[in-house]
Amino acid sequence: MVQTVSTPAVIVDLDIAERNIRSMAEEARKAGIRHRPHIKSHKSVYFARKQLEAGSTGITCAKLGEAEVMAEAGIDDILIAFPIIGEDKQERLYQLAQKVKVTTVADSVEGATAVSEVGERLGRRIPLYIEVDGGIGRCGRQPGEDTLQFARRIQSLPGIEITGLLSYAGQIYGEESREEIRSTARQEAATLKNTADLLREAGIDIPVVSGGSSLSSKFAGELEGVTEIRAGNYIFHDVGQLSMGMITVDDCALRVITTVVSVPAPGRAIIDAGSKTLTTDTMPFSKGFGYIVEHPDIEIFKLNEEHGFLSYDPASVSLHIGQHLTIIPNHACVLPNLCDEIVGFRGGVPVEKIRIDARGKNS
Amino acid sequence: MVQTVSTPAVIVDLDIAERNIRSMAEEARKAGIRHRPHIKSHKSVYFARKQLEAGSTGITCAKLGEAEVMAEAGIDDILIAFPIIGEDKQERLYQLAQKVKVTTVADSVEGATAVSEVGERLGRRIPLYIEVDGGIGRCGRQPGEDTLQFARRIQSLPGIEITGLLSYAGQIYGEESREEIRSTARQEAATLKNTADLLREAGIDIPVVSGGSSLSSKFAGELEGVTEIRAGNYIFHDVGQLSMGMITVDDCALRVITTVVSVPAPGRAIIDAGSKTLTTDTMPFSKGFGYIVEHPDIEIFKLNEEHGFLSYDPASVSLHIGQHLTIIPNHACVLPNLCDEIVGFRGGVPVEKIRIDARGKNS
Repeated sequence: MVQTVSTPAVIVDLDIAERNIRSMAEEARKAGIRHRPHIKSHKSVYFARKQLEAGSTGITCAKLGEAEVMAEAGIDDILIAFPIIGEDKQERLYQLAQKVKVTTVADSVEGATAVSEVGERLGRRIPLYIEVDGGIGRCGRQPGEDTLQFARRIQSLPGIEITGLLSYAGQIYGEESREEIRSTARQEAATLKNTADLLREAGIDIPVVSGGSSLSSKFAGELEGVTEIRAGNYIFHDVGQLSMGMITVDDCALRVITTVVSVPAPGRAIIDAGSKTLTTDTMPFSKGFGYIVEHPDIEIFKLNEEHGFLSYDPASVSLHIGQHLTIIPNHACVLPNLCDEIVGFRGGVPVEKIRIDARGKNS
Repeated sequence: MVQTVSTPAVIVDLDIAERNIRSMAEEARKAGIRHRPHIKSHKSVYFARKQLEAGSTGITCAKLGEAEVMAEAGIDDILIAFPIIGEDKQERLYQLAQKVKVTTVADSVEGATAVSEVGERLGRRIPLYIEVDGGIGRCGRQPGEDTLQFARRIQSLPGIEITGLLSYAGQIYGEESREEIRSTARQEAATLKNTADLLREAGIDIPVVSGGSSLSSKFAGELEGVTEIRAGNYIFHDVGQLSMGMITVDDCALRVITTVVSVPAPGRAIIDAGSKTLTTDTMPFSKGFGYIVEHPDIEIFKLNEEHGFLSYDPASVSLHIGQHLTIIPNHACVLPNLCDEIVGFRGGVPVEKIRIDARGKNS
């Protein structure tokens, strides 16, 4: 039992998080798709294990640093969904791949060659996904012919084995309706499948087609041709998905408990959660810096590092100094990264501390 | 000597940081003002000691958590510039005040009473600054009569001693010219001095008038009546002050070394520093999410958590995979908080690791 929670406190409702884990696992199972959750959202061994127990086949990490922490904890099937560039990164990949099964990605000859050199040194081929631009304009080859040509160029590298295509259609978080989200999800899947088929016709085996986000996986049953999804945010959900109408407040597991510390004028109050707790991430379909559960009409209109500025109608809302408020953050994935640990609650009561093992492991 | 710096890496040029510390100390000394630097910018014992060695009289912390870490390291004169609200915070203040000299602030009867209760339990009066709204509309009483009335209400509380007025004129970071910045700095000082004089005339001794930011302290010699400044950001500087023309690139000590990991299209590149390294803080007079030293014309136009998106004119700039770039962050104070340690450089060479002792201590 946790005795005291000093605010601002980042907490997680464990019943909600576990329900989110179960329901995503079930959706993936029904759709016949493997789920390799992205641990960037929680960065904790505790939650990674819960995801694996629910049926996830390995995990996804953004960076080597996260993967090193997870491997150290005994998680043995890890995708690093980020290009391995630089000699220091090659050395770290070599060390890691000696311990666990690592798959990674490339979208350049330089990147594929770097991984291949590690494979040669290991004396075996490292599984590699070719990254395909899912429409967000981030990393990735263009779908179709460009990806095929790239596959042909790197195919003969001795230390890699092309085992899949991977994309991230991040633009889905800018779609305005459930139908648009569904359409973008289906389009990402179709583009990936068509490109995979093109490579297969050219004699390049592509067993894995890896796509999807927490949003697109709401339509897991419709993602024809996709064999693996990497949803991460779904474990917590946040204002991003809430303001798009894809979930309800009761699906949001990660919350910040804050205290009103000053009420300097009618309709204005200051809380002890600022940008160093909530981050300055905004969301396209929501005003301000978070959703206050007890008073959704209050706007968090500004943040300083340790202060949050609230505005509200004093005719309908009354706040007093010392009052606790509960905030659903705009973007859950960035909050645990600011903490060494977060507090797990059940039924409104703190029950355990959860270590954020891979906090700050950005390299 | 640090052997390897894996990117993205937050680094500090120690020669620049030390020059910034010396020059601020000198400005304050010339103006006859004490400097109590805000350690929120670096959150490290290493830099706090350098500031004290240069002549700072104590330090400023935003939260009890930061103060606890600094006290543990032997720093014995600490201002907590944030209201103490809640029984857990009172208990922590009690523990802290037994070890070191703590001054804190209040802008409400509830807050002043909370501190007074701690003082009563300690058997001595805790020095307290009344927080006055410096024009930012954050915490604080209104200058003049409202502050006087408030002082009268809390004056008889048995566990506090009113020793100063404190304000923060954060709106200075929105001023558009050197003259406007100067004018805002002078106005904050005048307002504080006038209010202090009002209280003094009413028989309330106000030895300390605490104001100022890194920007306003550029005019330290003109801040008549101010006895203490709390500049913090000046140790590193950042795009905020750079884009206002108040400093040059050579004054910016905190930098991020990043690697180009993908060049997916002409004029577009992806780096390995995203929002989990740079934060999504923006600055009013600058586009994008940081300033690239080698190519100031490149815009960091978007961040995902681990990816930065660059756009540039491919006719004049050429980037290649594996290339390192150096970024001056938009807002330096929020970056060390994302790291366990940052790397100190001298003459372009990594020389030591600096622990961010109070990282994440937001409560």
